[in-house]
Amino acid sequence: MIVILSNKVEEARIQEIVHIIEKHEVKAHVSHGEDRTVIGIIGQADPVLAEQLRQLKGVEQVVKISKSYKLASRDFHPADTVIRIKDVEIGGDQLVVMGGPCAVETPEQIDEIARLVKAAGGQVLRGGAFKPRTGPYSFQGVGVEGLVMMAEAGRKHGLLTITEVMTPEYVDVCAEYADILQVGTRNMQNFDLLRKLGSIQTPVLLKRGFSSTYDEFLNAAEYILAGGNPNVMLCERGIRTFETYTRNTLDLSAIPVLQSLSHLPVISDPSHGTGRRELVEPMTKASVAAGANGLIIEMHTDPDNSMTGDGVQSLFPDQFAKLLQDLEKLAPLCGKRFDTAKTPALV
Amino acid sequence: MIVILSNKVEEARIQEIVHIIEKHEVKAHVSHGEDRTVIGIIGQADPVLAEQLRQLKGVEQVVKISKSYKLASRDFHPADTVIRIKDVEIGGDQLVVMGGPCAVETPEQIDEIARLVKAAGGQVLRGGAFKPRTGPYSFQGVGVEGLVMMAEAGRKHGLLTITEVMTPEYVDVCAEYADILQVGTRNMQNFDLLRKLGSIQTPVLLKRGFSSTYDEFLNAAEYILAGGNPNVMLCERGIRTFETYTRNTLDLSAIPVLQSLSHLPVISDPSHGTGRRELVEPMTKASVAAGANGLIIEMHTDPDNSMTGDGVQSLFPDQFAKLLQDLEKLAPLCGKRFDTAKTPALV
Amino acid sequence: MIVILSNKVEEARIQEIVHIIEKHEVKAHVSHGEDRTVIGIIGQADPVLAEQLRQLKGVEQVVKISKSYKLASRDFHPADTVIRIKDVEIGGDQLVVMGGPCAVETPEQIDEIARLVKAAGGQVLRGGAFKPRTGPYSFQGVGVEGLVMMAEAGRKHGLLTITEVMTPEYVDVCAEYADILQVGTRNMQNFDLLRKLGSIQTPVLLKRGFSSTYDEFLNAAEYILAGGNPNVMLCERGIRTFETYTRNTLDLSAIPVLQSLSHLPVISDPSHGTGRRELVEPMTKASVAAGANGLIIEMHTDPDNSMTGDGVQSLFPDQFAKLLQDLEKLAPLCGKRFDTAKTPALV
Amino acid sequence: MIVILSNKVEEARIQEIVHIIEKHEVKAHVSHGEDRTVIGIIGQADPVLAEQLRQLKGVEQVVKISKSYKLASRDFHPADTVIRIKDVEIGGDQLVVMGGPCAVETPEQIDEIARLVKAAGGQVLRGGAFKPRTGPYSFQGVGVEGLVMMAEAGRKHGLLTITEVMTPEYVDVCAEYADILQVGTRNMQNFDLLRKLGSIQTPVLLKRGFSSTYDEFLNAAEYILAGGNPNVMLCERGIRTFETYTRNTLDLSAIPVLQSLSHLPVISDPSHGTGRRELVEPMTKASVAAGANGLIIEMHTDPDNSMTGDGVQSLFPDQFAKLLQDLEKLAPLCGKRFDTAKTPALV
Repeated sequence: MIVILSNKVEEARIQEIVHIIEKHEVKAHVSHGEDRTVIGIIGQADPVLAEQLRQLKGVEQVVKISKSYKLASRDFHPADTVIRIKDVEIGGDQLVVMGGPCAVETPEQIDEIARLVKAAGGQVLRGGAFKPRTGPYSFQGVGVEGLVMMAEAGRKHGLLTITEVMTPEYVDVCAEYADILQVGTRNMQNFDLLRKLGSIQTPVLLKRGFSSTYDEFLNAAEYILAGGNPNVMLCERGIRTFETYTRNTLDLSAIPVLQSLSHLPVISDPSHGTGRRELVEPMTKASVAAGANGLIIEMHTDPDNSMTGDGVQSLFPDQFAKLLQDLEKLAPLCGKRFDTAKTPALV
Repeated sequence: MIVILSNKVEEARIQEIVHIIEKHEVKAHVSHGEDRTVIGIIGQADPVLAEQLRQLKGVEQVVKISKSYKLASRDFHPADTVIRIKDVEIGGDQLVVMGGPCAVETPEQIDEIARLVKAAGGQVLRGGAFKPRTGPYSFQGVGVEGLVMMAEAGRKHGLLTITEVMTPEYVDVCAEYADILQVGTRNMQNFDLLRKLGSIQTPVLLKRGFSSTYDEFLNAAEYILAGGNPNVMLCERGIRTFETYTRNTLDLSAIPVLQSLSHLPVISDPSHGTGRRELVEPMTKASVAAGANGLIIEMHTDPDNSMTGDGVQSLFPDQFAKLLQDLEKLAPLCGKRFDTAKTPALV
Repeated sequence: MIVILSNKVEEARIQEIVHIIEKHEVKAHVSHGEDRTVIGIIGQADPVLAEQLRQLKGVEQVVKISKSYKLASRDFHPADTVIRIKDVEIGGDQLVVMGGPCAVETPEQIDEIARLVKAAGGQVLRGGAFKPRTGPYSFQGVGVEGLVMMAEAGRKHGLLTITEVMTPEYVDVCAEYADILQVGTRNMQNFDLLRKLGSIQTPVLLKRGFSSTYDEFLNAAEYILAGGNPNVMLCERGIRTFETYTRNTLDLSAIPVLQSLSHLPVISDPSHGTGRRELVEPMTKASVAAGANGLIIEMHTDPDNSMTGDGVQSLFPDQFAKLLQDLEKLAPLCGKRFDTAKTPALV
Repeated sequence: MIVILSNKVEEARIQEIVHIIEKHEVKAHVSHGEDRTVIGIIGQADPVLAEQLRQLKGVEQVVKISKSYKLASRDFHPADTVIRIKDVEIGGDQLVVMGGPCAVETPEQIDEIARLVKAAGGQVLRGGAFKPRTGPYSFQGVGVEGLVMMAEAGRKHGLLTITEVMTPEYVDVCAEYADILQVGTRNMQNFDLLRKLGSIQTPVLLKRGFSSTYDEFLNAAEYILAGGNPNVMLCERGIRTFETYTRNTLDLSAIPVLQSLSHLPVISDPSHGTGRRELVEPMTKASVAAGANGLIIEMHTDPDNSMTGDGVQSLFPDQFAKLLQDLEKLAPLCGKRFDTAKTPALV
């Protein structure tokens, strides 16, 4: 950590600041420049210290050299994390495709979609039982019943399942029925939820907050890791920018950046990331080319009558199947394997 | 609601779309332009309908004419909402100042700060017992004990109290000790929390999500109002933009905009809105000039040793007192009254 | 165009608005809803009309249905524009790679880099003679001399050349020496420059303003097309967002979006789009997978001693060559061809 | 300047980097921490050096301690700059109001508006003769004729005049007719224009680029100052954010921030900053409360028939007059004076 003092701080104040720093069992190394004085801090500083220093009179800027997260960083854990669930491996050389509807609606709907995801070569069935909705009058999901429907469809067709969990009290029931729990973009900094997810071992797909920096994203993952759950995947799903033609701006640079800062698998969500059906195919391919470990893609058999508004970004089944065939050819050029014919059977 | 169809949609598809619309007990009025066909919807449409229409093949754009929130809108409730707590009125012609530390630390700290807030003319004591922190290793607040300390300090010095509540299960205990409950920026779309707050009558100060539009903000307020709690204040606290010199960009246009769209009181938070002590004074005055109903301002007796990093934006007690004296002169020019000598005594 | 009136506009005012509209030789079709009155405009409206209507008392919102640009739109020109320069075709099935340094420095430097670009399979040599610099004390380029050096290097090694032009008065001299003229991100709305470029026939690569919407971008292209120069390429080069880890956020959705709204070729600039050397390779591949017609990539033989700060994002020659070999395999999966061995010889 | 090296840089490379630094006639001071090595640079470093260092292998981050602009900074010039034009002083304790239409249309229009601006207490007449328009088919202004009309109206009614100049070649003619030249938001980084304005002495009002940081804004001012023209005013006019309800987000924190970083006067533009007539009054007052040295406000006698789309944000004459009467009371509370009756007569 480096502390840059304001112009013209008096020597007495510099000594007070040094004193405050050294109470934290680190060394302060003062260096007088022509313009300003700079204090270097040597030793492992408590993350709170940076915040405290920033508020001291006479301090202009504090530059962190070490990262505020540790367990999530590649410095701490150089090898890639590979999460094994039954015979699917996420984070290794296998490309993982999660497909399904925005919301689970009926047993017939989810069964038919599961059949189509499996037939196309996907490994994971996605579907929401509880829906986070920005207005109180919108459809909020079918609830626990939906979990049961999805688990049954996944089991029958040999697919893993992933579903969103929105509150700490539903974590246990969601974990009972689903193989992977998803944290939505609006909950990335719901710290109680993150802590609860840290207390179990079920794999978690953590979506990036739509206005969160990489640093905040990795600190959110750190909450889960610090609780004791090492099975975290990061998911880029688009950020909010001035451009409103697309629902969000899918930030594909996030894929290589997060893979360099962290050892956790990175999944891309081109459906929410664009909000437009016609962009899902090019942005799925671009995600794989950028190095994504997996994709989460919305697909629906009857978007005209889906119960949420996200049908607008859902692929039709034939588009989904065609896209996965293209990924089969693309994956090997990007150091991954993906096989539409021989999707691993689940044990 | 107006539905704009894509270029070259066939008549049969237009009829299908009309049919889908009319299932919702509204009328569809088709109008053929030179370029495109447009369908006007007449009648009170279900908010889900817009979302469904957007995803139909052949639909290019859906323009909502009515707002998606109702109880929060001024159309529905033309008169200003005035929230009375003891003898303080928020939303009327009284300017309300909430002051205090970011975090409650010790009984002595909060007692001394309460004394200073009261002496300066403030009406409400702010202080956090639970702190939302972006990293898991930061100071997370002193917990329920802090609620007790703050309630005692408020009672002793004749101040109302406000504190942040982060999860539904803490709503009841926070409401037992504090007069106003605050929802933080990261929880603006924590819908479970909003629903729980809708089930009680304690006034709520809802902070704008740092990347939320006015529409999303008012829809979040709608969750609380729809639950049955009419006592909601909106708080502008800065948005995230490309400019990083200030922690956030305080969007003061939000004050008149929200007051025109809604009847709810609007409070400004220049401390978090700027993240810099030297900007709190000018931005407080600017907030009042823009028409704010109140302010929430951080003040600390010893920022060098505060336990969170927010000391950097806390005023010193003498700065706080001087600022409130300035507001006493400024308020009448802005249609408000504020009296540092005769702060209303609490019953 | 659809004009949505405010709540409770009186009939007399509605008639005034209709009158104002019909002065523009279009028809106004009034439709009374339960909530509001809406006026549909039938006929080709003057683009100024929307702006005028927006400011009328009683008008709440104006929704444009037709686009404000015409020549740039795919509605107007359904087939892809293919720009032929010597034997390179941009916008067809050939993938085009433009490579070279940020700034031309010496004849030896640009000659050596040209040799390496050609050897790797690139078709176009890039290099700046005039540099737009945010501060007045930074290196501003070598000027016209640089144009001569680059033209000579291009000719010798059989490469087309592209260089940035910053002001109308330099357009002619730049066009004399270079095959393609580049408009930088800060000049996307330098309308005088755009008009001057519209008066010649030299192909133009127009970079997206770093905070410009797709609509503004296509309107800027429209300036050049309307002047009579049909040879325009669009270049996505990253937008400014809240994320500062990367210099910009490369918006790859722009590639398929622009290709659907317009017939013009779309080039991607992963060097400026990320500002980090290690991201250039994955984002180049992602650009091709997203459907880009070409790439513009910085490469430098000695980034430690480059004269501008953009060396930080320049590839080393061996990285550049390896990347182009990868593109040779990737291109056919994306409907393009790219051949490192048989780069077409220039006539 | 501080250079933070990557994790695990070898000693030999550190020495190479030191060598590169010391070629620039500054001293490098190496300091080995537990995690990383840091190099402090002592002496006045060439601004290009930071850019060069950032691109070196082994360098992770470069932190500038000194600012890249000098003449614009308050460190260099501690006293406020006061620009005197005839008997108006901008930057001192006088509040300056510039009012008028977006575009000059006819002699009668500008004469009548000048009369109203003067009567209300304004000191400067604004009006555009050349209009920067995002699409090529919009009204582009009446040209030089408009300059003549405005100069005549200003002279007759005893007002200074301000008009926008868009290209270097029009600087001289604009300076012949107008007292202040305005640089629009899209031209803030039109470096040729800035250089030309640096070569004359006519005062310049430089508008902030709608996506420019404070640092970039002050560097743009530096271009003019470095050319030899000390008469520069900075103008906050709103930035582009995710919120689209307002045309821009007026960033009022910019006022105190720019006044602390720089000695130049700061003007606020609430008309373009909000794009909505009903927000101009509250945001004008908020600007004054935040410390603005002046305002530039659109006013039009007949917005229904104005020739540009900016009528939507123009005040009616009675709103303008009422607002200036309010400013007369507000100014003294903000350390300024403003007198609607005794506007200083021009010599």
